Amino acid sequence: MKRFGQTIRLKPDKAEEYIRHHAAVWPPVLKMIKECNISNYSIYFKDNILFSYFEYTGNNFEKDMEKMAADKATQEWWDVVKPLMEPLESKAPGEFWADMKEIFHLD
Amino acid sequence: MKRFGQTIRLKPDKAEEYIRHHAAVWPPVLKMIKECNISNYSIYFKDNILFSYFEYTGNNFEKDMEKMAADKATQEWWDVVKPLMEPLESKAPGEFWADMKEIFHLD
Repeated sequence: MKRFGQTIRLKPDKAEEYIRHHAAVWPPVLKMIKECNISNYSIYFKDNILFSYFEYTGNNFEKDMEKMAADKATQEWWDVVKPLMEPLESKAPGEFWADMKEIFHLD
Repeated sequence: MKRFGQTIRLKPDKAEEYIRHHAAVWPPVLKMIKECNISNYSIYFKDNILFSYFEYTGNNFEKDMEKMAADKATQEWWDVVKPLMEPLESKAPGEFWADMKEIFHLD
């Protein structure tokens, strides 16, 4: 299992809309997340910053992310939520959410 | 089980020292964390911001936090690491790490 911590900013005044959508994520989107071997997935919010934590239990993360990106329901979901978000200037090339570095873990 | 997401800032130029300490947290500190019913505890770093995620499996979080705060090794550890950190202006009264709001979860 591999753990991920990622961060991104919300656009000014878009927090309420983002939070409302995430209180009712479309079932096909949730189903695809599970199919792509992601579990224990939480998103936290404060000061217009988001933090996500999830656990990946598959054996090919890139391939699973390609599968997710090819899913029609997921694409439609991203069309709704991505415009509410503003990636960090410090993100790596190709990132949307920026990966954070795990500097401590205790099982 | 209750999940927590928290955030705090590091003081300028203190990241390297904080990260170095967290690569070798003192065993009595780790033991006390477990005794206080905290598990699956990760800390993530990016842009001098920390995010922590942990799971609390006890039934009295405040009492367990009082127990942790009363532990001598933990106090000595905090004397080392707390001066490296700078709580957010937006934290709630009494907080050091600021609690974030969980806006999404998928098991």
